[in-house]
Amino acid sequence: MNKQNKGKLYGVGIGPGDPDLLTLKAVKAIGKADIICVPKSKEQTSTALAIVSEFIDDNACIEYMTFPMSKDVHVRIEARKQNAQLIEKHLNEGKNIAFLTLGDPMLYSTYSYILEYLNTDFEVETIPGIYSFAAISSLLNLPLCKDNDQLSVIGSFDKNASGMLELSDTTVCMKISRYKAQLYDFLTSHPQYKFVMITEAGKEKQQVYNNIEVLKEEVPYFSTAIIKKNKN
Amino acid sequence: MNKQNKGKLYGVGIGPGDPDLLTLKAVKAIGKADIICVPKSKEQTSTALAIVSEFIDDNACIEYMTFPMSKDVHVRIEARKQNAQLIEKHLNEGKNIAFLTLGDPMLYSTYSYILEYLNTDFEVETIPGIYSFAAISSLLNLPLCKDNDQLSVIGSFDKNASGMLELSDTTVCMKISRYKAQLYDFLTSHPQYKFVMITEAGKEKQQVYNNIEVLKEEVPYFSTAIIKKNKN
Repeated sequence: MNKQNKGKLYGVGIGPGDPDLLTLKAVKAIGKADIICVPKSKEQTSTALAIVSEFIDDNACIEYMTFPMSKDVHVRIEARKQNAQLIEKHLNEGKNIAFLTLGDPMLYSTYSYILEYLNTDFEVETIPGIYSFAAISSLLNLPLCKDNDQLSVIGSFDKNASGMLELSDTTVCMKISRYKAQLYDFLTSHPQYKFVMITEAGKEKQQVYNNIEVLKEEVPYFSTAIIKKNKN
Repeated sequence: MNKQNKGKLYGVGIGPGDPDLLTLKAVKAIGKADIICVPKSKEQTSTALAIVSEFIDDNACIEYMTFPMSKDVHVRIEARKQNAQLIEKHLNEGKNIAFLTLGDPMLYSTYSYILEYLNTDFEVETIPGIYSFAAISSLLNLPLCKDNDQLSVIGSFDKNASGMLELSDTTVCMKISRYKAQLYDFLTSHPQYKFVMITEAGKEKQQVYNNIEVLKEEVPYFSTAIIKKNKN
């Protein structure tokens, strides 16, 4: 408990799925938390909680926080505000909170929205986690960048995506299922690019594909591709 | 020891500097290694070794490996080959090796050159580490990407760098000291970008700058900037 008798909020990156990819710092923060905040969308059971369960103190409470995936931005904002208020209430009671984030808390996370709406009076510590694509490049023994290589990470195929693919030596494509048709078209017209896609990385169902034709099939949500300019 | 009585090579990402940012997997691999390989340039003492020293087995040997920063590519390649051969020798003797990498082994690392020259007969496992810029964004509580944001990571200011800065919502600039003048010019002509630079992140000497004029001063090698398009 800090000097004002308030609790502290830890934003904890828990990596891509393997409990062994938690950092020591994450394990310590989770172990001493009074409340474990677990973001959820809909009734989905929490992958995040399963990853860290062995490190949670027996007396800790689990607080599920729903962040609806609504297309209405006001619905999303209202949920973020309410969750931030709930966290403030716990902090004012002197509780230490670990807010879990799959991957890293500063890259496409719901935690970043909590920070937006949280009163700045509170002590906050964010603990980085292993990015999913860092784990994937290690799993494949595929270096993302060497020497002076430039890297892009895209999560959608907006108006800038083609340009980024063209300028970068390596592009990591996250959430591919949302834009596989556009990615297929890009790769068809740019045959000098090497393509590898991995689905369900690190899990039993993991598959690795090197042929872009897979983009014409059904692609699971947790699919990531690494696209590299062929320099030979 | 694996089925062929050969040792196993672990490429171990040890994160940006804080021992608490090692993953559990990295700690385990380091703890069971017979040999800890520590890449060095010149006589520089090893930061990497200091970070992991508490996790090394008492009976383990430390093997320093020099990778000269020579401008002559043949000198660099020769050193990589010789180091890969030395690793093969140890693996053939049944030794397990942990090859340390600051940050992550698949992003701008000397380890990736070892993989290039290592005979494929050997068992290799690469363990991801926290990227320096992931740690920095957490330290600053500054989200890199939200929603559909696109990210670039540049390590030099080559012919594509301006374009990447223009297309990305967020650009991480590593190794800034090499191109601070070009970055200054870009930011002067693009006033809609927000700039934050951090030097010696996580260390006592850490400094955070929000004014691009700092780029006209001497900038330490371990400086990183996060540049974001101002969307307001």
